[in-house]
Amino acid sequence: MSRKISESTVRRLSQYLRILEAREARPGATVSSTDLAAEAGTTAAQVRKDLSLFGSFGKRGLGYAAGDLADRLREILGLERVWRVALIGAGRIGSALFEYADFRRRGFDIVAVLDNDPGKIGTEWSGAVEVEDVEGLEVVLQRESVDVVIVAVPASAAQEVSDRAVTAGVRGILNFAPLQLRVPEDVSVQDVNVVTELEALSFDLTHLHATGTD
Amino acid sequence: MSRKISESTVRRLSQYLRILEAREARPGATVSSTDLAAEAGTTAAQVRKDLSLFGSFGKRGLGYAAGDLADRLREILGLERVWRVALIGAGRIGSALFEYADFRRRGFDIVAVLDNDPGKIGTEWSGAVEVEDVEGLEVVLQRESVDVVIVAVPASAAQEVSDRAVTAGVRGILNFAPLQLRVPEDVSVQDVNVVTELEALSFDLTHLHATGTD
Repeated sequence: MSRKISESTVRRLSQYLRILEAREARPGATVSSTDLAAEAGTTAAQVRKDLSLFGSFGKRGLGYAAGDLADRLREILGLERVWRVALIGAGRIGSALFEYADFRRRGFDIVAVLDNDPGKIGTEWSGAVEVEDVEGLEVVLQRESVDVVIVAVPASAAQEVSDRAVTAGVRGILNFAPLQLRVPEDVSVQDVNVVTELEALSFDLTHLHATGTD
Repeated sequence: MSRKISESTVRRLSQYLRILEAREARPGATVSSTDLAAEAGTTAAQVRKDLSLFGSFGKRGLGYAAGDLADRLREILGLERVWRVALIGAGRIGSALFEYADFRRRGFDIVAVLDNDPGKIGTEWSGAVEVEDVEGLEVVLQRESVDVVIVAVPASAAQEVSDRAVTAGVRGILNFAPLQLRVPEDVSVQDVNVVTELEALSFDLTHLHATGTD
């Protein structure tokens, strides 16, 4: 498979999967590229183009079998396996993420939680995972065969924990800290930055108002 | 000012601002396009191109005055005013957001919190805002002159609260629900979807491994 799949294509595939999941429970459900496009906020041509990158799906005029297409998307996205996740930072964001049931259901299993706060280290979360001292990060990552780390620490500590995780062999980082992590080329970082999203909203609202289009 | 500014440009402007803010406290601090590029993970040419969209900044060979450039970016991003925000959904994500001090510091003031849970309605958050019944959403949005809503409700309720907010005049939505909201063209929606980010990571890790580049 070509690796020249753009970030925005991957995001749309993820959206299509979410739409299909709402339908695949009905046996025999089908969905057209027009339906997928309408729900995902794109065009039917874009849907067909995105899906054609991964071989041929569906029959002209009949649409796609929802269950089959969902299975194929899960395979493409690498969701048929369980990813072992360590959460670094046991603060508010960390605990909201830990309690988010969708993670586990989607194959992301938080197997370790780390923090530097003595008041948190040793506490048990949901009777399942004990918060460990981030001092021992490398040992924990290796013991738990961690694939992905979630960085949910303050910006001032984020680069250091990221460097340590990468040195310990981690190749995927979900970053909640408001800075651009520097990582080697073979490491994938995805950022969740609420401030950036709010600033993009602010920009849109400012310029919508400035040009008086509403 | 042209409105043909891409979403990705706006995101980079927001990143540049974050980098400048770390420096502007030092009087007379300057920063080169090369510095900004290195920290933002882009090229110096891209930085110069992004900034040139908004007029001329800096002097060749001298770099940009950090404070001046930060001020100009805040102006471009519409951050010189306070945006009045209503939080719809007083669950875990909502409360993590409410406690996030960076919001207020960056000009996003959460002036109302709404939920449909009788156990939450009437409780006071940080002695500042009382959770109100989402039944009265339209009244609250108008009373508080809300500019932006944060949708932090389950997917099944998200489209309905979004529709109601838009009908009440809101033109900016920060959406945490895992679905694509349908809104009129003059409404700006920014999505924060952790599942999408994780699926993008999963895709990258799967295809990095598949092609054996590490």
